[in-house]
Amino acid sequence: MEFGIVGLGRMGGNMARRLAQKEIKIAITNRSFNVTEALAGETGHTACKTYADLVAALEKPRIIWLMLPAGEVTETAFSTLLPLLSPGDLVVDGANAHWQDDIPRAARCAEQGIEFADAGVSGGVWGLKNGYCIMFGGSDAAAARLKPYMEALAPTPTDGWLHAGPVGSGHYVKMVHNGIEYGMMQAIAEGFALMKDKSEFKLDLAAISELWRHGSVVRSWLLDLSADFLAEDQNLEEIAPFVADSGEGRWTALAALEQGVPTPVMSLALMMRFASQGKNDYAAKMLAKMRHGFGGHAIKKD
Amino acid sequence: MEFGIVGLGRMGGNMARRLAQKEIKIAITNRSFNVTEALAGETGHTACKTYADLVAALEKPRIIWLMLPAGEVTETAFSTLLPLLSPGDLVVDGANAHWQDDIPRAARCAEQGIEFADAGVSGGVWGLKNGYCIMFGGSDAAAARLKPYMEALAPTPTDGWLHAGPVGSGHYVKMVHNGIEYGMMQAIAEGFALMKDKSEFKLDLAAISELWRHGSVVRSWLLDLSADFLAEDQNLEEIAPFVADSGEGRWTALAALEQGVPTPVMSLALMMRFASQGKNDYAAKMLAKMRHGFGGHAIKKD
Amino acid sequence: MEFGIVGLGRMGGNMARRLAQKEIKIAITNRSFNVTEALAGETGHTACKTYADLVAALEKPRIIWLMLPAGEVTETAFSTLLPLLSPGDLVVDGANAHWQDDIPRAARCAEQGIEFADAGVSGGVWGLKNGYCIMFGGSDAAAARLKPYMEALAPTPTDGWLHAGPVGSGHYVKMVHNGIEYGMMQAIAEGFALMKDKSEFKLDLAAISELWRHGSVVRSWLLDLSADFLAEDQNLEEIAPFVADSGEGRWTALAALEQGVPTPVMSLALMMRFASQGKNDYAAKMLAKMRHGFGGHAIKKD
Amino acid sequence: MEFGIVGLGRMGGNMARRLAQKEIKIAITNRSFNVTEALAGETGHTACKTYADLVAALEKPRIIWLMLPAGEVTETAFSTLLPLLSPGDLVVDGANAHWQDDIPRAARCAEQGIEFADAGVSGGVWGLKNGYCIMFGGSDAAAARLKPYMEALAPTPTDGWLHAGPVGSGHYVKMVHNGIEYGMMQAIAEGFALMKDKSEFKLDLAAISELWRHGSVVRSWLLDLSADFLAEDQNLEEIAPFVADSGEGRWTALAALEQGVPTPVMSLALMMRFASQGKNDYAAKMLAKMRHGFGGHAIKKD
Repeated sequence: MEFGIVGLGRMGGNMARRLAQKEIKIAITNRSFNVTEALAGETGHTACKTYADLVAALEKPRIIWLMLPAGEVTETAFSTLLPLLSPGDLVVDGANAHWQDDIPRAARCAEQGIEFADAGVSGGVWGLKNGYCIMFGGSDAAAARLKPYMEALAPTPTDGWLHAGPVGSGHYVKMVHNGIEYGMMQAIAEGFALMKDKSEFKLDLAAISELWRHGSVVRSWLLDLSADFLAEDQNLEEIAPFVADSGEGRWTALAALEQGVPTPVMSLALMMRFASQGKNDYAAKMLAKMRHGFGGHAIKKD
Repeated sequence: MEFGIVGLGRMGGNMARRLAQKEIKIAITNRSFNVTEALAGETGHTACKTYADLVAALEKPRIIWLMLPAGEVTETAFSTLLPLLSPGDLVVDGANAHWQDDIPRAARCAEQGIEFADAGVSGGVWGLKNGYCIMFGGSDAAAARLKPYMEALAPTPTDGWLHAGPVGSGHYVKMVHNGIEYGMMQAIAEGFALMKDKSEFKLDLAAISELWRHGSVVRSWLLDLSADFLAEDQNLEEIAPFVADSGEGRWTALAALEQGVPTPVMSLALMMRFASQGKNDYAAKMLAKMRHGFGGHAIKKD
Repeated sequence: MEFGIVGLGRMGGNMARRLAQKEIKIAITNRSFNVTEALAGETGHTACKTYADLVAALEKPRIIWLMLPAGEVTETAFSTLLPLLSPGDLVVDGANAHWQDDIPRAARCAEQGIEFADAGVSGGVWGLKNGYCIMFGGSDAAAARLKPYMEALAPTPTDGWLHAGPVGSGHYVKMVHNGIEYGMMQAIAEGFALMKDKSEFKLDLAAISELWRHGSVVRSWLLDLSADFLAEDQNLEEIAPFVADSGEGRWTALAALEQGVPTPVMSLALMMRFASQGKNDYAAKMLAKMRHGFGGHAIKKD
Repeated sequence: MEFGIVGLGRMGGNMARRLAQKEIKIAITNRSFNVTEALAGETGHTACKTYADLVAALEKPRIIWLMLPAGEVTETAFSTLLPLLSPGDLVVDGANAHWQDDIPRAARCAEQGIEFADAGVSGGVWGLKNGYCIMFGGSDAAAARLKPYMEALAPTPTDGWLHAGPVGSGHYVKMVHNGIEYGMMQAIAEGFALMKDKSEFKLDLAAISELWRHGSVVRSWLLDLSADFLAEDQNLEEIAPFVADSGEGRWTALAALEQGVPTPVMSLALMMRFASQGKNDYAAKMLAKMRHGFGGHAIKKD
């Protein structure tokens, strides 16, 4: 046994399950040991209480796949783990980390003769069933070592994983993937909002979303998901008009600015989420006051 | 006396006042006759109860300036007035009307030997004091007849009014003016929203707006107005984050689509107003549901 | 034989072929009769030289499906055809027409006891093989009469066609579909443009597009198509950066303005096409001059 | 003499001239010494060949104002200068630097007992004549020491300069100022592009820009500048449709993303510049290929 997963949340836990389904035994660890034990019981994987246990449970050269929240949690895990490892070991960050964080991490590993690689993983809560789409960044040697695991995690052994390029490229490609996702989601949402507003036609949005899954130009997995929830409820009256955003949407928009490439759709999709979070309110108040200032137009009081 | 104003609201009333200040006597009429009488008392203008009275009060060839809400109100007034007029009379629509409505109106007038012209008027509640910026569309003959009135209404006789082109061009230019206004307002509002949000610096937005009035690149009348209200209150806590939009902002965006000219700033400025009116809510709910669908992300309940 | 198609272009011709594959015989006509004859030879359909021939070839009550370019061509065909028809006949406009044109056409038909319906048809050049996704607007009776034809044209008899609502709703839903399509296309294009620009990673865009077809959140038919052409050539050096736009993209943006619903993604996707057509050039020149004006920045000469 | 300027380019040179006009004598230095000598000859300021000369020429405690291109040039100057200074000296970075760079610089200075402050300076090539609008970030003590210089540089002693807040806040406020500038410029440019395109009205854009300077809602310094160049040439045929962007426009857009505040207008204004630089071309090519892929639409060859 050479392969361990650190972090058994929504993503890491199901990835461990999928490997078990493919008869691959691994070592697992998690902040709460009872989660680790439960999953070990379910899958036959080896439960480890501490990073040291995990490292001890694996044969050298080890492969350790971090599947933790990006940022501080990942950084702490990385810093704790690194001194426990041996030359030749391979650390893979599978989180939604910023690709620019990969480069210094690879350098820190290299100082100890440890290899670092990054993996962007798409699939969400459906990955266990459908497989995970993996964008891998690292050396050819690292890709070769990970191949059996990526083959097992991907929808099919040959498709669904890609060695995108050097360290950082896996997370970069995954980041762009999420930027596209933001834009596609917003495009779909805008279209349904228009139809919902067109009350004179009494359109059945559930039926339309189902229809478009067949032979339309916009057929897509995001539309499939939309058809699923619209079939249950298309009024969405109990849902707050609040959309969270996570790191990768912002990072793509930041990357576009840094590269000087126009991404109006991705960036506006993100900004409409900001607006849904109330972050447009002060600007709107300013506008109401300006309109009053030059035209005497009425102002709504809060 | 050849000149009459129909409509004594915020704009028409003050225009009548400004003409009186310049010693030009005119006939005036308004839906509520007590408004007409009060303004006549104040200005020495001739109060007319009905359109027929107004027409009777003016010497031929008459000039009648409509200053009414665009759309139905203007159309009704126009239809009522037209049969009362004589060949050689000149009707000017000074409302914020759509320029495409001017062309058929000019044709209807022409059938009776009446001249039609359009005027876009900027200045808002400050026009009485500062003068009105007038964009005029019509024939050279019509411009010549209106010249003394536009000279009196404008900030100075030579500046502040322009014969922009043929019928329709006055409203077109005014429409674009308002489109630019939307964009500039939104730019200023976004900047102040950013600074308001940057709590670590405890920025004094009133002081900043006042500062920028002097020597900065963004100095502008909209900034002057902003400095005025920010000096009184920069928290805007009692103001609802709701911004109305009026015809011309939408018309500019529509014109851009019809002409195929990209106007991202004008159009987004308008759409952020739509969003402030709650018209983004269904789209936001769809996005929240999609995120839940693929990633299991939590949904806020309303 | 009750069913005829007018217009055998890219869409109409293949729809006739698909009906033939399903053993449905129809009458067909086209501006160029040699196209009609060739298709009749291929399919066994009845070639008609004129509209009168087409009408004569069909039993009453007839169904005539117009599949012509929207606008003038459709209007001319409609006006020519209408006097030839009999009460009880049904005219379907399957073109990408504006839904607001459907209402007066239905009224003109109704004066003669003729029924009018509208159908938005998606599927493009792939419809022959995969079936056409049909959004139908009209009465229940009209839907019932068309059912066998829509079942044959759709990807499967039960899926792929929908009676969306009353007259106009078919084209409205198709219009929104195309608006979403614009947004999704732009989202994908922006993402690939970002990756193409990221030269340090030497990303293989063909491999990435293929990868994302498997298990990613952005999997979609538009991505499938992209993978197809990127596999052949991912540099696109011989392609001009010029994107045409057609009616429905603009109509969706117009509808959003009329409804007051924010559609930043759809509208920006359209405007970036305008920009690709050179319609941003004057604005860019203005900006270059302004920068020079306040900052002395250099201006590029053309 | 306590005050020295490092960097005598477009901004620094004219600031030195303005101080001379106000009878304030300073020490000056520049990469090319002949520039320094020429300006010293013109103004009576003290020409210094090296940083050491500059430091030697000033009495303690010194004030040294850096007016260099942000980034590497400023960093090199800062690093070279710092070891030459004494406790109690004050270094002001007046460049268009990123406010986040100010914090570590202030810390490096503090280690030596040197004070650091930042100043955002607006005014461009017109500052010499009209005065410079200065946004200052630093301690109260630093503000007090700089007061006489800011009073001389500003349009009037009391207006035109502001102690915005702590170190970093000067550059932050200047950054937001430039973001607003981007949005306002784009709004104006879009409006004139629309009118230019509206050939049927043969609009005189020079006359319109001049008109709007008087009594319109959009009157502004940017419009004044536009009126200036449009009066000379409104066809702009020899100008390339290429707009450069500089740091602060991007930084504002980045700050908006970091703060999660929607700035669609500022960000789109920036992205349209990217597009003018050809950075939208690959996306446009992708779209042309996609359209061909699903609809068989023609592709333009380059």
